[in-house]
Amino acid sequence: MTAWLSLAAVTAPSPDSGAHLVLALAAILTAAKLGGHLAERLGQPAVLGELLGGVLLGNLDLAGIAWFRDLPNDPALAGLAGLGAVVLLFEVGLASTIEEMRQVGWRSLIVAVLGVATPWVLGYLVGRVMLPNHSVYAHLFLGATLTATSVGITARVLRDLGRSQSAEARIILGAAVIDDVLGLVILAVVGSLITAANAHTEASLASVGLVLGKALAFLFGSLWLGSRLSPQLFGLTARLRGGSLLLVTALIFCFLLAAVAASIGLAPIVGAFAAGLVLERVHYRDFSVRGERPLEELVQPVSGFLVPIFFVVMGLKVELAGLFNGDQLALTGLLVLAAIAGKQACALGGLGAQLDRLSIGIGMIPRGEVGLIFANMGLALTINGERIVDPALYSTVVIMVLVTTVVTPPALQWSLGRSGGRSGRGAEGQ
Amino acid sequence: MTAWLSLAAVTAPSPDSGAHLVLALAAILTAAKLGGHLAERLGQPAVLGELLGGVLLGNLDLAGIAWFRDLPNDPALAGLAGLGAVVLLFEVGLASTIEEMRQVGWRSLIVAVLGVATPWVLGYLVGRVMLPNHSVYAHLFLGATLTATSVGITARVLRDLGRSQSAEARIILGAAVIDDVLGLVILAVVGSLITAANAHTEASLASVGLVLGKALAFLFGSLWLGSRLSPQLFGLTARLRGGSLLLVTALIFCFLLAAVAASIGLAPIVGAFAAGLVLERVHYRDFSVRGERPLEELVQPVSGFLVPIFFVVMGLKVELAGLFNGDQLALTGLLVLAAIAGKQACALGGLGAQLDRLSIGIGMIPRGEVGLIFANMGLALTINGERIVDPALYSTVVIMVLVTTVVTPPALQWSLGRSGGRSGRGAEGQ
Repeated sequence: MTAWLSLAAVTAPSPDSGAHLVLALAAILTAAKLGGHLAERLGQPAVLGELLGGVLLGNLDLAGIAWFRDLPNDPALAGLAGLGAVVLLFEVGLASTIEEMRQVGWRSLIVAVLGVATPWVLGYLVGRVMLPNHSVYAHLFLGATLTATSVGITARVLRDLGRSQSAEARIILGAAVIDDVLGLVILAVVGSLITAANAHTEASLASVGLVLGKALAFLFGSLWLGSRLSPQLFGLTARLRGGSLLLVTALIFCFLLAAVAASIGLAPIVGAFAAGLVLERVHYRDFSVRGERPLEELVQPVSGFLVPIFFVVMGLKVELAGLFNGDQLALTGLLVLAAIAGKQACALGGLGAQLDRLSIGIGMIPRGEVGLIFANMGLALTINGERIVDPALYSTVVIMVLVTTVVTPPALQWSLGRSGGRSGRGAEGQ
Repeated sequence: MTAWLSLAAVTAPSPDSGAHLVLALAAILTAAKLGGHLAERLGQPAVLGELLGGVLLGNLDLAGIAWFRDLPNDPALAGLAGLGAVVLLFEVGLASTIEEMRQVGWRSLIVAVLGVATPWVLGYLVGRVMLPNHSVYAHLFLGATLTATSVGITARVLRDLGRSQSAEARIILGAAVIDDVLGLVILAVVGSLITAANAHTEASLASVGLVLGKALAFLFGSLWLGSRLSPQLFGLTARLRGGSLLLVTALIFCFLLAAVAASIGLAPIVGAFAAGLVLERVHYRDFSVRGERPLEELVQPVSGFLVPIFFVVMGLKVELAGLFNGDQLALTGLLVLAAIAGKQACALGGLGAQLDRLSIGIGMIPRGEVGLIFANMGLALTINGERIVDPALYSTVVIMVLVTTVVTPPALQWSLGRSGGRSGRGAEGQ
């Protein structure tokens, strides 16, 4: 791969020459932007178009063009896509503060727990019925892909409908954030069960408890310690000379917490998310005083470049050819039903006389980045040589994500319209 | 590499797990920012500190820590560093316009041609005398690494001395830009000679002429066609919906031209540079009208993240252990002399009564990114199984870049001070 920029690679094109990577990026970013545009034209979130753009490119092998199908195997591109997921979760974390998380409080927690447990159980049951030859771990993993609501997609839909400031919106967004955390904890637990099974050691209740404890200790520990260290770190780097110091210090902080999370058995994205939650504007006021732009604005171009790569690469891995047989279609249909029905349990948590419970249940439907990240990890996990998520199952999960994303905007528009102005329209519009 | 984010990779750390990449990036960016700070404190450009930071990390294997030495072999990291070079040349291109290139005119061209030909010949002679066992191609390649002045470093030094607007500065910067282009053309020609030799075909004058013609045709063709297509492209994308459209469209344009350059046998960075030259603010005025920030500001965070990775990774590859023997020290010393003496030929081109010729010669001394990129390519090129640039020679080239960068700021400060206010001090200061 030092052949990256080599001339020799041009006369004898090889899959890992620099020409290959820049061409792949040009194609992927074009697909992302055209797909995103079409999706938004149709009243859908851009992420849907990015995924579908990837699905389209990846399945051009049906038309004889196999080049795109192999792209996800390119290590440089896989690395960029992985960084895209890390930067995305960092950005999602940046958008909320620990204080906000604390304020949404018990109500969101109840909604979140109901909305995580129910789809997990339903997804597990769908796996058990439809995939009897897969291991129990595959069933648990399939259920886990249904747990996390996509904060990004939900927030986007609520904003586009001008309802970001309603009570329902605050509960939904709070629950979606807690969702992510619970989903990541579930992932850590299921992952440790699989590791234990691979090592032929019995996964005792104690070992599950240990993972759960480590995950919670990391989250609370990194939030507690991080919010104390972060002001020091930025105070120190504000005294350094050089360019891009605010952005690069923030990225170092994000990558370090991602590495710590990984080193104790959690996914790197958990650390990235925690880093984003910890960082608050007041920590880097020394930079703001100098007139530097806020961190969100500096991260935005980096994520604008990397995040679409992640979604298009996720789409590239979907194999449509395998989907069109009875069993696979039935599995996909049941999984979508489990995903939608499972989140309606959230409505039960929407206590309080004035709340539009139906809208809360519908608002929790969209699955997104976290479900995709889970499915992507499952592709790499094996148990006794059997893949936890095989390519067909991966494609099913992506279709589930696509369908839940497509149905939410019109459904939410209808249900919020039905409840009328019950909980004051927000001012944002557009 | 779909194992990127995998949990399994954590319990059994493998070199290409996500944990590895985020940890490597955290370490590399920290080294870049600390090195850059120290360099600037000592009145040196930040890039020097980034390189030295990489050299330090890479040679920690002398202290028993071998982890960093292997990092440049990580394909994801090599990909990121390669993108760093592409984005850097794109940014350098963005900073000048075709019109400015035209205006610096013949004077800069003469300075540039003298300043490219002389070090090339001197470097070739050093190679011939000191490395008699290497092929003639290695000697030509070694000379080529001395050709290109670093626009970035020179511009930075002139700005820091408050002399960006002087006549000397304009000639130096213009010549440095033409330098880059000539260097890239030389690289294409030498590269094609090597390819021909590998294929055991005689490299005829006709085939060299063909490469030269292709390179010039690409440069002028892409500038001509590009400056006609670019306004159309941005006019079209300005009508799309979605975020980050200006930045991503510009990156697509850059990656596409890089891929075209690579496909006709040029280095991808030539295409990136041409793309930057072509793009002008007026092309994307539809975006500016909407209130989007100028492209330079949007590219800046992306390059602030990627470019230091490139320089630190370049430093990581330097093996200090091999440098401390008589032959190697002599080679390094002669190469540095050839680099410095060669550029003094530029003074001969500084025609015109009022010009400070000595300052022009000194201002052309710093070599930088392009020399490093050449050396890096040489590492990947082989001729009849022999590497064009072996690790020892690579380290020699990096040392040459470091020394030329270190000597320039004090020398230029002295020579400009000597000539006093002859050509009005600029207003920029700081």
